[in-house]
Amino acid sequence: MISFRLEENSWQDVAAYLEDDNRIIIPVGSTEQHGTFAPLGTDTHVALAVAEEGAERSGVLMAPPLWYGWSPHHLVVPGTVSIRAEILIELFFDLVSSLARHGFRLFVVINGHRLVNIPWLQISAQRIQEELGVRVYLFDLAHMAKEVIAREQMGSIGHGDEQEISHMMHCSPELLRPDRFHDAPHPERTLYHLDPGSSRDSLCYVPATINDMEKLRERTGDTITGSPTRATPEKGRIYHQHLVSRLLELLQHLGNS
Amino acid sequence: MISFRLEENSWQDVAAYLEDDNRIIIPVGSTEQHGTFAPLGTDTHVALAVAEEGAERSGVLMAPPLWYGWSPHHLVVPGTVSIRAEILIELFFDLVSSLARHGFRLFVVINGHRLVNIPWLQISAQRIQEELGVRVYLFDLAHMAKEVIAREQMGSIGHGDEQEISHMMHCSPELLRPDRFHDAPHPERTLYHLDPGSSRDSLCYVPATINDMEKLRERTGDTITGSPTRATPEKGRIYHQHLVSRLLELLQHLGNS
Amino acid sequence: MISFRLEENSWQDVAAYLEDDNRIIIPVGSTEQHGTFAPLGTDTHVALAVAEEGAERSGVLMAPPLWYGWSPHHLVVPGTVSIRAEILIELFFDLVSSLARHGFRLFVVINGHRLVNIPWLQISAQRIQEELGVRVYLFDLAHMAKEVIAREQMGSIGHGDEQEISHMMHCSPELLRPDRFHDAPHPERTLYHLDPGSSRDSLCYVPATINDMEKLRERTGDTITGSPTRATPEKGRIYHQHLVSRLLELLQHLGNS
Amino acid sequence: MISFRLEENSWQDVAAYLEDDNRIIIPVGSTEQHGTFAPLGTDTHVALAVAEEGAERSGVLMAPPLWYGWSPHHLVVPGTVSIRAEILIELFFDLVSSLARHGFRLFVVINGHRLVNIPWLQISAQRIQEELGVRVYLFDLAHMAKEVIAREQMGSIGHGDEQEISHMMHCSPELLRPDRFHDAPHPERTLYHLDPGSSRDSLCYVPATINDMEKLRERTGDTITGSPTRATPEKGRIYHQHLVSRLLELLQHLGNS
Amino acid sequence: MISFRLEENSWQDVAAYLEDDNRIIIPVGSTEQHGTFAPLGTDTHVALAVAEEGAERSGVLMAPPLWYGWSPHHLVVPGTVSIRAEILIELFFDLVSSLARHGFRLFVVINGHRLVNIPWLQISAQRIQEELGVRVYLFDLAHMAKEVIAREQMGSIGHGDEQEISHMMHCSPELLRPDRFHDAPHPERTLYHLDPGSSRDSLCYVPATINDMEKLRERTGDTITGSPTRATPEKGRIYHQHLVSRLLELLQHLGNS
Amino acid sequence: MISFRLEENSWQDVAAYLEDDNRIIIPVGSTEQHGTFAPLGTDTHVALAVAEEGAERSGVLMAPPLWYGWSPHHLVVPGTVSIRAEILIELFFDLVSSLARHGFRLFVVINGHRLVNIPWLQISAQRIQEELGVRVYLFDLAHMAKEVIAREQMGSIGHGDEQEISHMMHCSPELLRPDRFHDAPHPERTLYHLDPGSSRDSLCYVPATINDMEKLRERTGDTITGSPTRATPEKGRIYHQHLVSRLLELLQHLGNS
Repeated sequence: MISFRLEENSWQDVAAYLEDDNRIIIPVGSTEQHGTFAPLGTDTHVALAVAEEGAERSGVLMAPPLWYGWSPHHLVVPGTVSIRAEILIELFFDLVSSLARHGFRLFVVINGHRLVNIPWLQISAQRIQEELGVRVYLFDLAHMAKEVIAREQMGSIGHGDEQEISHMMHCSPELLRPDRFHDAPHPERTLYHLDPGSSRDSLCYVPATINDMEKLRERTGDTITGSPTRATPEKGRIYHQHLVSRLLELLQHLGNS
Repeated sequence: MISFRLEENSWQDVAAYLEDDNRIIIPVGSTEQHGTFAPLGTDTHVALAVAEEGAERSGVLMAPPLWYGWSPHHLVVPGTVSIRAEILIELFFDLVSSLARHGFRLFVVINGHRLVNIPWLQISAQRIQEELGVRVYLFDLAHMAKEVIAREQMGSIGHGDEQEISHMMHCSPELLRPDRFHDAPHPERTLYHLDPGSSRDSLCYVPATINDMEKLRERTGDTITGSPTRATPEKGRIYHQHLVSRLLELLQHLGNS
Repeated sequence: MISFRLEENSWQDVAAYLEDDNRIIIPVGSTEQHGTFAPLGTDTHVALAVAEEGAERSGVLMAPPLWYGWSPHHLVVPGTVSIRAEILIELFFDLVSSLARHGFRLFVVINGHRLVNIPWLQISAQRIQEELGVRVYLFDLAHMAKEVIAREQMGSIGHGDEQEISHMMHCSPELLRPDRFHDAPHPERTLYHLDPGSSRDSLCYVPATINDMEKLRERTGDTITGSPTRATPEKGRIYHQHLVSRLLELLQHLGNS
Repeated sequence: MISFRLEENSWQDVAAYLEDDNRIIIPVGSTEQHGTFAPLGTDTHVALAVAEEGAERSGVLMAPPLWYGWSPHHLVVPGTVSIRAEILIELFFDLVSSLARHGFRLFVVINGHRLVNIPWLQISAQRIQEELGVRVYLFDLAHMAKEVIAREQMGSIGHGDEQEISHMMHCSPELLRPDRFHDAPHPERTLYHLDPGSSRDSLCYVPATINDMEKLRERTGDTITGSPTRATPEKGRIYHQHLVSRLLELLQHLGNS
Repeated sequence: MISFRLEENSWQDVAAYLEDDNRIIIPVGSTEQHGTFAPLGTDTHVALAVAEEGAERSGVLMAPPLWYGWSPHHLVVPGTVSIRAEILIELFFDLVSSLARHGFRLFVVINGHRLVNIPWLQISAQRIQEELGVRVYLFDLAHMAKEVIAREQMGSIGHGDEQEISHMMHCSPELLRPDRFHDAPHPERTLYHLDPGSSRDSLCYVPATINDMEKLRERTGDTITGSPTRATPEKGRIYHQHLVSRLLELLQHLGNS
Repeated sequence: MISFRLEENSWQDVAAYLEDDNRIIIPVGSTEQHGTFAPLGTDTHVALAVAEEGAERSGVLMAPPLWYGWSPHHLVVPGTVSIRAEILIELFFDLVSSLARHGFRLFVVINGHRLVNIPWLQISAQRIQEELGVRVYLFDLAHMAKEVIAREQMGSIGHGDEQEISHMMHCSPELLRPDRFHDAPHPERTLYHLDPGSSRDSLCYVPATINDMEKLRERTGDTITGSPTRATPEKGRIYHQHLVSRLLELLQHLGNS
């Protein structure tokens, strides 16, 4: 093989890979606003950072990323792209279906877009597993970082928050604008907590409306929640290594199954 | 009004209600196997039990339930009905859209089907909120019982488990067959935990395949996971009262907003 | 079995039922305005009344009802819910498909929503029969009451009319408001008659527009057509018994086939 | 105008027409088997015969016909084309929507395919009327011939039956093969009658399966029901004139509205 | 057989045809404005003219035409009908699927609507070929006339242009209004040429917007481009014979394969 | 701005860009086999090479690429991904719709997948232009290289052919395997030529079936057509510069409009 990137190899190289392995990593992100200080591609960049290191170290192939996800609320400011969840369900089905045809059986999705991409991935993955007889593993950065976040006492999930800005400081610092960092505390809501690891009773997540986001922007001057000023490269390094090691643990487990 | 049930009132009664209130409760369940000892309608029965008590005590109207949900994996044994998630997204959209037209603005979904109904409800609720300008609150029994489950040390989420069988013992004991109760421990899976309140790193939930369920049935003689033999009416009562009081808390909050 | 209601039984009970029988009854109604004096659930209540008695007396299982049908024109006043016909086609397909998977072969739909639910049921039933190899019987109250209506000289089909109000007087009198009864004669239209048993040349039925209904409301103060003041419990009893006996006749015929 | 056919005129001619009139006739048929002795286009030919005479005598424009309808059961023998009902709903919507854009307001559908085309036309027409604010009149040959059929004692509706073969004898005798005429009595079915004018209790129409039709072919050597040998040109003439005069009556009524 | 028209034959005749042949011609056109001087049906008329002569001379069956195509931009003036491309993809799939079921294997589409119908035909044809195992040949008049257009120095493709008006003069002169002929030169656009045979670099074709067309109408008084005044019956004859001979060449080739 | 890549900038940077400019470039490619000697990502790599140079030199923003296109026939060998054309139509609509919301008005698609991506792009672009009031320019490498291909006498379009291998030699030589280069002449087909610049009569393009491709593989040992052994970096350089200069010409024209 020329590289761990599917798209850089020829079909003959992939055919050779499939003789020994049937795992593949698919990075899924978004192109959506992450405040005035972080790039629109943040979710895809962090998914790629984890996926690439996992692929390189494990020898598992990685497919080209989905750069566009479901981001309806982030349409509030320029540069965000949102694809309807119903379309992403079908797109992802076709992507996996194509690869399943050739012998890939174990698909590990690295999701950098956290809560928002999960519903359509769940629906698509169920249909894929039932109809195609392959397995889809939804490796979401937030769900796989619950332990490290608690241990390191990083702030809870928001948007452009301590977690993801730390991660970006580690992976792609050149795309950040630290001079623009500013904090925006989570608005309090009755019986509603975003964090997947929260132990408190909660309503389930539904993306905000654009109008909600507009109000956030009017109130805070930006469209983030969380404390990016608390982000550090070291926190990002620890967070990233945790995720990579979880991914390697999963890939190894699958490789032995 | 004749009753808290939307369907028992005439349009004139509903018009009168809308002069003072714009809240409505929608129970959403499933018709799916819950082991040899609990009825197919378990999820809808428990959603109805919470919704009805909440409606009656708060004076908020309740719409007729959705008896059928997304249950692809439970098709393994007779009596289960599964509607495609894509269809439920549209069905729920039309349901809320119809009521929004008349002035209802705050929709509280009581979901008795736990993890499985959530993805399509999230996708549908987002579109509803953005396009119709109303609010949808996803009140899921499992997400709203995290605190009581921890406090009472009830076993984690499975299917036909201690939580829901206790709840049924409290609400509809006549539909249970205690003589058939039997436990089935959760199969261990690498980096995968179902419980919404778990603090451990985890892949995201994807429904099992029918084939997976078939293997479960072959191994255990039934298609449940969890420990129904640990269920008691008293646990069910505490669990139920917790949920009802959370629902009343939410309804009151919305009524004041 | 615990009862004739599918949802009250466990999968094991249904599996036992399927060893001897493969018939199932599915009640289909609507949640739509029926004037100021009758409940929104009228169509579902009457479908359930016939279906339940038929199920109980024949020993045939009954699935949970579809509470929501296609009622676009009745959106004119509060409380009506209308699901797009295209979505109902798919919903019903999935419902029958799930049950067909387990061995049910003969599906008897009890439709209480008369003309309006028939087109989507026909389209769905055709696809079901062709693709799934099972049989769907569309038992519509209006089409099955042609003979008794003629014999008893009950008024022709409208909405909130003598037929359905009589039926409700028999089945669910507590949900009616007789003090609000009032008649609204059918508007005359050129070459257009609603009654399925009419022997006169006619254009085919298309639901009115909301605007048409709004004009009806402005002209008559309500949104019904027909003569509910002519309704009596005795007419309702005769009408109901006719329908139940037709249903039993059909079920017996199917049971022998 | 060059002719009553929309497609033979230029847009300028249509623009001129629309200054005085907003009615248009749309013939809808099928391409499906009508036995060994009648052409596949029978339904479209008879719809065209009525529509053309109506258009010519009233001065109302006629759009090009839909040659293909919903004919799933007739796929049993060669030459039949069936379009899914869901696609026809959308096709017809776009057709009317295009014309409504230009000022046509009153659409008279002449349906020669009888019961089978009606469900999708009803669903499409409802959406059209509600969304586009125009009127669609479903002029079905069978529903508009109830009186003449009773008066002339022509046999009831089947397929390739006395009614339509008489009509073809009058309109397009050169496409018939009288030497191949043969009768096939309706199979008796419990509580099921096809005729729209029947006064007997009945289940609602659902198209047969291909397998049903195959059995009919095996039993009778063809795939018709009814008594074409009883057809005569004179019956066809009376039937045709009845329909044309009903159409003229309707067009005149609409022209004055 | 009674004629080369599928719809004029009975299923028995078609069954006999299929014993020796499996080719069928499908004419596809549009109903759209072609200027003040040519009929709305121009594209279908020219497709039919080629298809009918090809069918008659080769003995290959011809299906009824699709009178309505994708014409979104021509909705600018009255009489145009445009069906969404997505619907036409499905309609055409069902049409071919029906015929493929009976043994037709080689489908020759005669497209008179040139560039605009091609995209949806390509998408539909691919799915048809892959799923049904039959062949679809897209015989488009413009793509099959590149050589004759160059040789005869007829003007390039526009709308209501020298090519199609010459063709109409040959096929259906009675539907033209020569007194209204007028020329409208192609608007110059950067790096954009419509002609399929052009050897110059170009962006790909996308239909104009209605607003673009409206501007054309305002500027030129009509909605055509090209030089119909240069059209002659003799050019039409040469053009037509070229196309028919290409079609016969193709049919013969397919007949031998 | 941090770079010409949309995803590397924050929303604030994009907002600033939109004050002066409303153009954006969208690269569209595929992940599909290109023989044993070229990478699966060839189409996306060449689209990116042209798009990136055009963006950098013009100062126009470039969105993240679509890595997956419509490639049904190339599923024949491992690594190819094909998304249904119907899904791509919707995906692209949402992508442009999101950006149009923020003020982008001129979308230049750089298509590296040549003929196969064009139909769905045409259908999507039409809807976008009509509904969103923006402009989409389909800059396809093959249609924009007609002149340079003729001038340089490079072989006509195939797959993995002289044109695209030359281009890759110039852009991404490290991803090629020259030791595996081998030629495969185009199979001769009656009245069928792929080249968009061909002056010969032709049927329109329809992608081959997987079975066709399988036969090609069996006959030639690979799944390409064309003469990659004739490719040189110098030809690639000339070809690339031609395309970039065409793109700059187009962008400048749009910038002035």
